[in-house]
Amino acid sequence: MAFGWIDEQAQARRRAGLVRTLRPRPADSPLLDLASNDYLGLAHHPEVTEGAARAARTWGGGATGSRLVTGTTELHAELERELAAFCGFEAALVFSSGYAANLAAVTALGPHGSLIVSDAGNHASLIDGCRLARGATQVVGHGDPEAVRKALATHEGTAIVVSDTVFSVDGDQAPLAELAAACREHGAGLVVDDAHGLGVLGEGGRGAPYATGLAGAEDVVVTATLSKSLGSQGGVVLGPARVIGHLVNAARTFIFDTGLAPAAAGAALAALRLLVREPERAARAREVASELHARLTAAGLEAVRPDAAVVSVRAPSPEQAVRWAADCRTAGLAVGCFRPPSVPDGISRLRLTARADLSGAEIERAVRVIGETRP
Amino acid sequence: MAFGWIDEQAQARRRAGLVRTLRPRPADSPLLDLASNDYLGLAHHPEVTEGAARAARTWGGGATGSRLVTGTTELHAELERELAAFCGFEAALVFSSGYAANLAAVTALGPHGSLIVSDAGNHASLIDGCRLARGATQVVGHGDPEAVRKALATHEGTAIVVSDTVFSVDGDQAPLAELAAACREHGAGLVVDDAHGLGVLGEGGRGAPYATGLAGAEDVVVTATLSKSLGSQGGVVLGPARVIGHLVNAARTFIFDTGLAPAAAGAALAALRLLVREPERAARAREVASELHARLTAAGLEAVRPDAAVVSVRAPSPEQAVRWAADCRTAGLAVGCFRPPSVPDGISRLRLTARADLSGAEIERAVRVIGETRP
Repeated sequence: MAFGWIDEQAQARRRAGLVRTLRPRPADSPLLDLASNDYLGLAHHPEVTEGAARAARTWGGGATGSRLVTGTTELHAELERELAAFCGFEAALVFSSGYAANLAAVTALGPHGSLIVSDAGNHASLIDGCRLARGATQVVGHGDPEAVRKALATHEGTAIVVSDTVFSVDGDQAPLAELAAACREHGAGLVVDDAHGLGVLGEGGRGAPYATGLAGAEDVVVTATLSKSLGSQGGVVLGPARVIGHLVNAARTFIFDTGLAPAAAGAALAALRLLVREPERAARAREVASELHARLTAAGLEAVRPDAAVVSVRAPSPEQAVRWAADCRTAGLAVGCFRPPSVPDGISRLRLTARADLSGAEIERAVRVIGETRP
Repeated sequence: MAFGWIDEQAQARRRAGLVRTLRPRPADSPLLDLASNDYLGLAHHPEVTEGAARAARTWGGGATGSRLVTGTTELHAELERELAAFCGFEAALVFSSGYAANLAAVTALGPHGSLIVSDAGNHASLIDGCRLARGATQVVGHGDPEAVRKALATHEGTAIVVSDTVFSVDGDQAPLAELAAACREHGAGLVVDDAHGLGVLGEGGRGAPYATGLAGAEDVVVTATLSKSLGSQGGVVLGPARVIGHLVNAARTFIFDTGLAPAAAGAALAALRLLVREPERAARAREVASELHARLTAAGLEAVRPDAAVVSVRAPSPEQAVRWAADCRTAGLAVGCFRPPSVPDGISRLRLTARADLSGAEIERAVRVIGETRP
């Protein structure tokens, strides 16, 4: 039977305790959410949901075609202008997802004959971008600018260095300034995914590249999502106008995809304007993360010091991580549970999101539940 | 300079007349739209836009996380149940785009050691799926079941055959029944992208696989978009429950992507329910296509006989295709213009969409403008 082989894999997954199932959530979930990537708590903000609703009414339920045909509305152009201005880049290009934005940036900037140097801890979408790109990829150790230098030295000609700015699993930051220095020594471009930095790091949430003085540099390209701090859906590439123009002409996930839905563009634009008006939201997310980390550590848990709004807590095994997360849920707390094969190092952990709108009492409750349910 | 090489490529593109630029459209465009993929004219239907608005208000501006963490709402589950029931499959899984759905299906069903047989005219997302998959790909001639048979005969073990059902550029249909027969002779799975069939072909728009008697077969997997006939954004994979369960556990563009925005799920669900209630919309799209084709042919234009709702008209050269489309636009008509490198055969053409809601007068006007502006 054509797909019979799937059953064997499913059995192996069951034996290893690694079966994933979907758990649809109700609109009025009673759980305290420390699992989402809604870092600024904007996904349910009335201005954001009204932004989505208004855009759907004005522009329709979908973009109706590729961005190159009918899928670019004035709303898309407005969002791109404001995202570029906010993050300090010359131009921006919006995609239907962050995944698509990363595939676009890496494939279009890693052409045949080029070298792509990729951090071992990079997000799946950057890895898939490397695999799709026509250039040759060299994977280097996690957060190791010296290894990046060595890799670049092996290659004559066009090269890019690709890294997350904040790594999703442990919430640690890449050594951006040193990566940029290594790139400049070799005339290479730096392509960084600021999915977990935008809205959290830098002045008013302008992101990790802005915080590092790299915004607007002619050799730096940033990707990000509209689905985390901006509470919507979609991805964006920010960079020099020449790079954005190149993506419009060469990036397959731009050319051959339907444009981002107007509602998603409208929600992201409303969230961005909120953040411009209330820049303290970014600092608050970082404060919540520090407080969560301090309290978890005080409770004797092994938590990684957060560089942004993700706090990672080590679990002894995949099975215990799953059980721990389930026990938290029973106690009214939603936490992320990362385990193989979604973690690069095979270490299972709980992943907590330090939402800017968590109250002190909520932080206290979260830490108490995590401590009481520990394996 | 890091990205200096881009300027050379941009110059070459300019010399070849192949530069693409974005043209943001206003909300109240005066153009008659024969360029979008809004086949049933539902993107602006008040039930669809209200579906988006209501979902955003109830569920938030975004899904807030991966479908495996916080990104699956009861709305997603409802949409998946109704899509599966409508198309006649056991289960369905919704993605943030059709591109992501195709990457998921091909990579998860084309594992290491398997053979992937891919039609030469397939959509970019299927091609990228083949490139990302660990299996080996054999590309076969367009619409050639005999070539598929030969390719399958070269391989022992797991294999899939991958094809669009309706090809985007010329609007021609794949020989689905023969492809399924070839697959069954060899115990291979059939994976087809019904992006341009759903809502147009089959009883009440249930799609090309349904029309061919392949719906619900244990060796058939269908992908489709929510962004064409359903007037929204997103993609879906339909198939046996074992395949859908496998995708949940193995497909990287499912696991590592933020879930589809609630507004997009709500718009698609509203459009689907409209189509269930008004099944004549599908037949009307096919009628409009036939009428467009007949009138264009009568006017002496070289139009491909449409199998679904896409009508393709040959142009003498890329430059003349661009000029022709621009002249149509000046005369108030938006048409698609496909040219290298977006066309597999190097032939440039105008691409017309036969929207179900075009009136007789609009069809007449479109044909007149296309005839008067021909190169």
